[in-house]
Amino acid sequence: MSLHLNLSLMTPGHFRQAWRLPHADPLAYLDIDHFVRLARLAEAAKIDAVFLGDGPALRGEIGDAPGSGIDPLILLGHIAAVTDQLGVVITSSTTYNSPYNLARRFQALDHVTKGRAAVNIVTTGTPAAAANFGLDDHPDKVTRYRRAWEFLDVVTKLWDSWETDWLVADKGSGRYGDPEKVHRIDHHGEFFSVAGPLPVAAGPQGRPVLVQAGGSEGGLKLAGDFADVVFTVAQTRSKAVAFRRDIRARAGAAGRHPDDVKVSLGVVVLVDETAEAAQRRLAELADTLPIERLARQLVDGLGLSATDFGPDDPITSDDLPADLPPSAFSTGFAVSTRALIAERPHTPRELIVASAGGAGHRLLVGSAEQVADDLQEWFAAGAADGFTIMPADTAVDLPNFTRLVVPILQQRGLFRRDYTEPTLRGRLGLPAARGVAVSGGAQVG
Amino acid sequence: MSLHLNLSLMTPGHFRQAWRLPHADPLAYLDIDHFVRLARLAEAAKIDAVFLGDGPALRGEIGDAPGSGIDPLILLGHIAAVTDQLGVVITSSTTYNSPYNLARRFQALDHVTKGRAAVNIVTTGTPAAAANFGLDDHPDKVTRYRRAWEFLDVVTKLWDSWETDWLVADKGSGRYGDPEKVHRIDHHGEFFSVAGPLPVAAGPQGRPVLVQAGGSEGGLKLAGDFADVVFTVAQTRSKAVAFRRDIRARAGAAGRHPDDVKVSLGVVVLVDETAEAAQRRLAELADTLPIERLARQLVDGLGLSATDFGPDDPITSDDLPADLPPSAFSTGFAVSTRALIAERPHTPRELIVASAGGAGHRLLVGSAEQVADDLQEWFAAGAADGFTIMPADTAVDLPNFTRLVVPILQQRGLFRRDYTEPTLRGRLGLPAARGVAVSGGAQVG
Repeated sequence: MSLHLNLSLMTPGHFRQAWRLPHADPLAYLDIDHFVRLARLAEAAKIDAVFLGDGPALRGEIGDAPGSGIDPLILLGHIAAVTDQLGVVITSSTTYNSPYNLARRFQALDHVTKGRAAVNIVTTGTPAAAANFGLDDHPDKVTRYRRAWEFLDVVTKLWDSWETDWLVADKGSGRYGDPEKVHRIDHHGEFFSVAGPLPVAAGPQGRPVLVQAGGSEGGLKLAGDFADVVFTVAQTRSKAVAFRRDIRARAGAAGRHPDDVKVSLGVVVLVDETAEAAQRRLAELADTLPIERLARQLVDGLGLSATDFGPDDPITSDDLPADLPPSAFSTGFAVSTRALIAERPHTPRELIVASAGGAGHRLLVGSAEQVADDLQEWFAAGAADGFTIMPADTAVDLPNFTRLVVPILQQRGLFRRDYTEPTLRGRLGLPAARGVAVSGGAQVG
Repeated sequence: MSLHLNLSLMTPGHFRQAWRLPHADPLAYLDIDHFVRLARLAEAAKIDAVFLGDGPALRGEIGDAPGSGIDPLILLGHIAAVTDQLGVVITSSTTYNSPYNLARRFQALDHVTKGRAAVNIVTTGTPAAAANFGLDDHPDKVTRYRRAWEFLDVVTKLWDSWETDWLVADKGSGRYGDPEKVHRIDHHGEFFSVAGPLPVAAGPQGRPVLVQAGGSEGGLKLAGDFADVVFTVAQTRSKAVAFRRDIRARAGAAGRHPDDVKVSLGVVVLVDETAEAAQRRLAELADTLPIERLARQLVDGLGLSATDFGPDDPITSDDLPADLPPSAFSTGFAVSTRALIAERPHTPRELIVASAGGAGHRLLVGSAEQVADDLQEWFAAGAADGFTIMPADTAVDLPNFTRLVVPILQQRGLFRRDYTEPTLRGRLGLPAARGVAVSGGAQVG
């Protein structure tokens, strides 16, 4: 039984201020050569896939760090083209795309990558995005997830719109394909009306791998019904174990085999030759953080008043409101931060460093042995089927992870030494995409 | 003075039934290795760019030929990643995309290709597309072009939303960028409300190259106001000369230098070692055409009745209605077909073969010398700044063109022997993208 590993290419790193370190190139996040170098290291280490998050808006300020990144579909499409085996997991918004275009693009990516495409479906929690798409107000989370569910219903029907035996190719008679094997989907729902079919037949995976990342009830329902892989955050192992058990139960309740949904736990990793070297680098990274502003955001996100809690004032469980406030934070982040506070009081500064500058994921700092031990323990405990490694300082920690940690996991028999399956779906141990589910749709003539 | 050359990668070819020929792979249009092979030949021949058309729907039937293709953004993004110098011209619809997403994707492509990205803007004349995007009726052409104009207004403002000197990168103080150099666009128009800015600064070209292909009045206005390159069709040289003169005058009237818009004339090319070999292959290709159906479509597209004109009944100028009928054909196709009939009566069969099976472009058949002579004569006459070569049978005629025709054009000093400009914009002799045009927009803080 071996674990799955994705690597996030987010640059400068999951500590956004990593650009301030002496070695850092402040424009690396716009430099394709930087990303290609990292991707080649990932492929040499037999990583399952590389990953990028996304939101269609300038996030935050550019006053103290790069605000956002290049469109990940284009960036990771390029990465896939210059690698042979590496999967690509590309974040796309169901709120700010049309299902026909998205289904078509990822099907195309599956063709050109020969089965290495995955889409990470998000509903986009950035209010600034709404104003880039003509909406006066950002849709609320419940509405966004209702749309996302219908979106995936349409996308999967489109992916299934050509039966596998559609080709005739009789050169003598001139009969090319069988129109009876190509189906309209004729979807009419609350958000979308889509006739279909897609312009061409499916690629090697049938359906690209579907990843889902939201921790709200709407997100969990999506995960159970549709997702092949669920990205999640957890600050404590017990939370992660419970989460994975819940996701597997939801998949089972939706008529799927629980093993057909894989949980990939996000972990921010800072790893170096020795534990001391790693701690030194953590101290340097912590020094780059704009702690006052991040503390205000954190306190506000927890439903507390920033006038009551400065960066070094401990927050206890008793301080927290019973319900999660509606906030710009993800549900997963709020839950995992509350879990840390439930264990013992934490100051905003501690919480910010523990979540890599406020990005929400657990921070794992240490030597390669320490990091490998931690991942092994969480994996053995059933906390995850694998990990999405989010380098603290990507230019340093991604190479350190592939060079130092992966060989240990391989020696322990926890991670592959070579790629054996040609498609990402096969490599993840997922079943071939479900067959053509379309029925009753009109034939395309 | 040298001409520009693009190569269309459309597969099986601009004779859609080329899949029936003995050597043809019926699934080549889904095979990325096929496209990579062709693109490498194009790059070795120092071609400006490769091109793919597109429409977001299954076009036509699959009963007798492949109906459509893989999403060209993904396909040509892959091609760009595995080449070093080749430009990519990617067709995208302004009717079925949002300007924020499109601006962002092509800006990303400009980053990852280091300045080789071009977008060919179309409004999509395929009624089937509407039903894939929740519209009951396909918008009429005038509305589509009004939307397209506003779309490009938004897209170009977004591309200009970061001033070039936005970066501070002061590691000591932690000041990363200057928010005063990053501008919202705050566009509010008939079709779109878009706040901006884009998430990241512009790529090497500032603005990706903008190509426009429509021949209607709305398309010509777009061309004069925005286009760097105009794709066009013409069956007669005098029509092409007049078209180019008109486009240059429109650019001038819009306050641009007439040399800043380049006309690329589409030509379907069937070329072989000898004129006889080319004619033999034309006869084979003509035999693959479903002539009865294509003749009915052609006659209908000209505003005539298919019961009055069979495949071999001559059509004269007197038969044609005074005005172009509203039809599924492009304006450019209808105009150029009428021009052929104006010269002498033509049967539907003749017109179909002359337009490569009804696709609308002029068919040029012959030896390499004959093809080179023809291109040189049209270029010298001022009919075009260059050509978009559309291979009749792509698997054969693209390699034949790069192997046989390009060396002749190079020997005559009509075409480059090597790439000298790093960006597509530079190679086309276009000015650097116009500066930041945003004014009055609110600052992003």
